[in-house]
Amino acid sequence: MDKKIELIEVGPRDGFQNLKEYLPAEKKIEVIEGLIDAGVRHMQITSFVSPKAIPQMKDAKEIASVILKKYPDLDLFALIPNYRGAQTAVEVGMKKVTNVISLSTSHNKANINRTHDESFDELEKIKKEFPMLEVCLDVATAFGCPFEGKYYDVKPLLAFEKRAYDLGIRTMTLCDTVGMADPRQVREFVTASKETFPDVRFEIHIHDTRGMGVVNTLAGIEAGADGVQSTLGGLGGCPFAPGASGNTATEDLVLMLNEMGYDTGIDFDKIVTLAKKEYVEIEGNYSGANLHVDRSLHSCIC
Amino acid sequence: MDKKIELIEVGPRDGFQNLKEYLPAEKKIEVIEGLIDAGVRHMQITSFVSPKAIPQMKDAKEIASVILKKYPDLDLFALIPNYRGAQTAVEVGMKKVTNVISLSTSHNKANINRTHDESFDELEKIKKEFPMLEVCLDVATAFGCPFEGKYYDVKPLLAFEKRAYDLGIRTMTLCDTVGMADPRQVREFVTASKETFPDVRFEIHIHDTRGMGVVNTLAGIEAGADGVQSTLGGLGGCPFAPGASGNTATEDLVLMLNEMGYDTGIDFDKIVTLAKKEYVEIEGNYSGANLHVDRSLHSCIC
Repeated sequence: MDKKIELIEVGPRDGFQNLKEYLPAEKKIEVIEGLIDAGVRHMQITSFVSPKAIPQMKDAKEIASVILKKYPDLDLFALIPNYRGAQTAVEVGMKKVTNVISLSTSHNKANINRTHDESFDELEKIKKEFPMLEVCLDVATAFGCPFEGKYYDVKPLLAFEKRAYDLGIRTMTLCDTVGMADPRQVREFVTASKETFPDVRFEIHIHDTRGMGVVNTLAGIEAGADGVQSTLGGLGGCPFAPGASGNTATEDLVLMLNEMGYDTGIDFDKIVTLAKKEYVEIEGNYSGANLHVDRSLHSCIC
Repeated sequence: MDKKIELIEVGPRDGFQNLKEYLPAEKKIEVIEGLIDAGVRHMQITSFVSPKAIPQMKDAKEIASVILKKYPDLDLFALIPNYRGAQTAVEVGMKKVTNVISLSTSHNKANINRTHDESFDELEKIKKEFPMLEVCLDVATAFGCPFEGKYYDVKPLLAFEKRAYDLGIRTMTLCDTVGMADPRQVREFVTASKETFPDVRFEIHIHDTRGMGVVNTLAGIEAGADGVQSTLGGLGGCPFAPGASGNTATEDLVLMLNEMGYDTGIDFDKIVTLAKKEYVEIEGNYSGANLHVDRSLHSCIC
């Protein structure tokens, strides 16, 4: 088969932002470079957000400056919650950013304190002000919302995507923010999105909260998603639910997809070694199964 | 959709047998009855094996006697490693047992110290001696072996199934003993098995060792598996690899399948409550994601 599939590492943003203790910039850069060494070519390297809101990301400019200079040919991008974030991103030389708006109006209000109209106005302003910047959109709570429940109808999502499409957005990521999706739903929502907007690149960003991280990701790939996001070690999860799984673990996905004959471009041995190292060195919420697989398990009977 | 799918609980055997501390028979019975209360109708309740080999199963006769008497209409069965186990099973009134032979000759030797010929001879003897007993076969290491590696060719499996078929076996379970399968392989092996032996009932028994428990199970279901095995809480795993995931967690499967519109007959709220209780009360190797989901997570922003 050897069908190419794009794995997008978002650990340096979605994983690190949830850490309780500040992780020094040098350590963040070390992990990012380890990921690149393992074959990662698409990565969300940081977030240009108020340090008051997320102190962990206070080194965003430093991270971006160092990494962009050293790896100019890779697909590296950052999250921006607003116009201010876009300004900073442009200042430090980012070529690509991702803005976030929740499909759920109540989640959008709780998360970034904006109505949909306010959010789309801001997105329009960013697009107009920075015509050279590639602006992508994370559709948060695309499959369900902690306040509103799971979504069974795809139409509100398609209407939401239409608003972004009309502003010129051509990369959108369907985010299962709190892990409410199931494979049937992922297939339906990805298929409908691709059919409705064939010239849009659709990615999925799946959380493993309820144990469906890997299966939902495969469902998305087989339904035609152009890229899938994950974090090294499955780092992430919810700081208010200790033990709850985080994002889908990159190394678990790499193992499955490589074994299935997909071309991920990522070396499993290298990435699982990196994940295990990070698991030991950085305290956080991990969910990767392969973190615990003793490779000498091969001589064990069970 | 509401397509029926048979979930077969094997926690009372594959989960409990791996516990370090002896779990009293009353506690085992309590869990079994909790499972039945949640809607479980198919269950491997114990194993008639030498107490020297697996001391945890020394109460097999007691468990079977109590449960068979109380729930005569359910699909309850036990594992038997050999003729002796079949004898005991019949003595206590079991109507259905599962014998185990590894597809891997080296694993079969290491696991039950027999060649394939010796194992199939014993199976034939069991079938002949107990014509009223339904004898099923667990094909251990069906997808790969810790000694021989992963299997990429389905032909040896089909030849193995043919030997069992010729002895009159009409229920076979493809076991991913150490979690080496991937979804592409599960689809291929299940499809080929069903096509080659259309009158055989094929089940799958998947371990989550490398994070593919749920995705491989769904792959098996969609490829036509007649039943899927799992353990409450994902209890199980390898006693020699602490932290390694065990079987696929029943409650994780129930959640996914119910959400996808399958009819599992099992109540998610009841089974997840039972799994959490067991997780707190019985020390062991668990892998269920939903064990850690705080239901009040619904009010959490991440």
